[in-house]
Amino acid sequence: MIGADLVVLCVPVGAFAEIGQVIGPALKPGAVVTDTGSVKQSIIDSFQEWVPESCSFVPGHPIAGTEHSGPESGFAELFENRWCILTPSPDTNIKAVEAVTKFWEAFGSRIEIMDPQHHDLVLAITSHLPHLIAYTIVGTADELGDDIKSEVIKFSASGFRDFTRIAASNPVMWRDVFLNNKDAVLEVLQRFTEDLTALQKSIRRGDGKYLFDTFTKTRSIRHEIIDQGQADYKAPGGVVQEGTPPVVAKPATE
Amino acid sequence: MIGADLVVLCVPVGAFAEIGQVIGPALKPGAVVTDTGSVKQSIIDSFQEWVPESCSFVPGHPIAGTEHSGPESGFAELFENRWCILTPSPDTNIKAVEAVTKFWEAFGSRIEIMDPQHHDLVLAITSHLPHLIAYTIVGTADELGDDIKSEVIKFSASGFRDFTRIAASNPVMWRDVFLNNKDAVLEVLQRFTEDLTALQKSIRRGDGKYLFDTFTKTRSIRHEIIDQGQADYKAPGGVVQEGTPPVVAKPATE
Repeated sequence: MIGADLVVLCVPVGAFAEIGQVIGPALKPGAVVTDTGSVKQSIIDSFQEWVPESCSFVPGHPIAGTEHSGPESGFAELFENRWCILTPSPDTNIKAVEAVTKFWEAFGSRIEIMDPQHHDLVLAITSHLPHLIAYTIVGTADELGDDIKSEVIKFSASGFRDFTRIAASNPVMWRDVFLNNKDAVLEVLQRFTEDLTALQKSIRRGDGKYLFDTFTKTRSIRHEIIDQGQADYKAPGGVVQEGTPPVVAKPATE
Repeated sequence: MIGADLVVLCVPVGAFAEIGQVIGPALKPGAVVTDTGSVKQSIIDSFQEWVPESCSFVPGHPIAGTEHSGPESGFAELFENRWCILTPSPDTNIKAVEAVTKFWEAFGSRIEIMDPQHHDLVLAITSHLPHLIAYTIVGTADELGDDIKSEVIKFSASGFRDFTRIAASNPVMWRDVFLNNKDAVLEVLQRFTEDLTALQKSIRRGDGKYLFDTFTKTRSIRHEIIDQGQADYKAPGGVVQEGTPPVVAKPATE
């Protein structure tokens, strides 16, 4: 018997069925179980059945973290002002949802309740596709000859290094994400490929207007992210500040 | 007549032919001209012919900068410890190359001399492809319905926001880069697409081993970039530090 009132599972998405089998029968009656997995529907499908009637499962996903993993990579401010998405089924004990909400709010998180399948689609675009793309481009560079590879590393400050950060994320965690959110990832990947093909064609044809129009549209999303305090802003002087930049330093619009 | 001994051109790559026509005849005899453009061969092709016999053109590319543009986005430490690539032709006056070298070293830059076409290939992978990919993924998100777009912004901390930073770069500058480095960009884009297709297939087939192996390989490049001091390292506590992380905070290897 596990004596805990609240159990927080922080393991790769593919491990939940096995963990459910082991801990399900040992949960204390009335215990609340939550998790931090990056895919929600597949975890519900593989884990919910092992949770005893008297216990509650409140699936969760804190949208925070770095490319580093393991307990030693944590720090006190990690969840401050970051969202945590909970995807309980409509018949979950409301007190259990409240307990998990309070848990995350104690770290400074903001809570969003969401349908698990909708979560998986939103995260496919905001997280799973970006990671897939980053892994791909870093892998493409890795397969170049050794000469050019050393130059890629040397001159990475020109854009490439932004991709290497997320491509350094935990391989087991990300393998499991893609295996368990296949449909949503393939759907957004299809859209991405169509858009990339259109840009490729415009480069081949020398269509400067299409390039300019595409590159102009994308700026506004960045500004909205900064305005909502979800991005660090590197101010002149190189000092990283959280949230809204001072007006004087807003991007030049040429 | 321009009285300057050293002229530094900081304009979009597509503007060099026109600028050459205007300033070429007005350059002071013996003047040294350099530039900061992101593509080198096309600038040489369109600008060199306008430089008088008595003057020297030393093409340059400082590998530094943020997504912000314009003079007001500069700061004193911008070039410190960053590379600046010079691509002079073999018959350039050595004193002119030395003058431009000293100019950049005064800002703290390190100098690399390179063949212009080789520069364009290296930058196609380290800079032009990453920007193209970032513009694409942010554009893909932008075309989603308004409901899901607001959620993408809200939950961007999960990976997406890293792409929005470089996709907020100057559209005129980047239009000109792609129009003027077409062959190298299309070449590396082809390799990228092949690698992405292979990952897509492995997701569709549920090939966890291929995913795991790919995601493992890519970690080492990040560590080399950090070791070479070309990446900021976000230490536990959220404080950004330059260069090598303390040993205790190295990424967990699970």
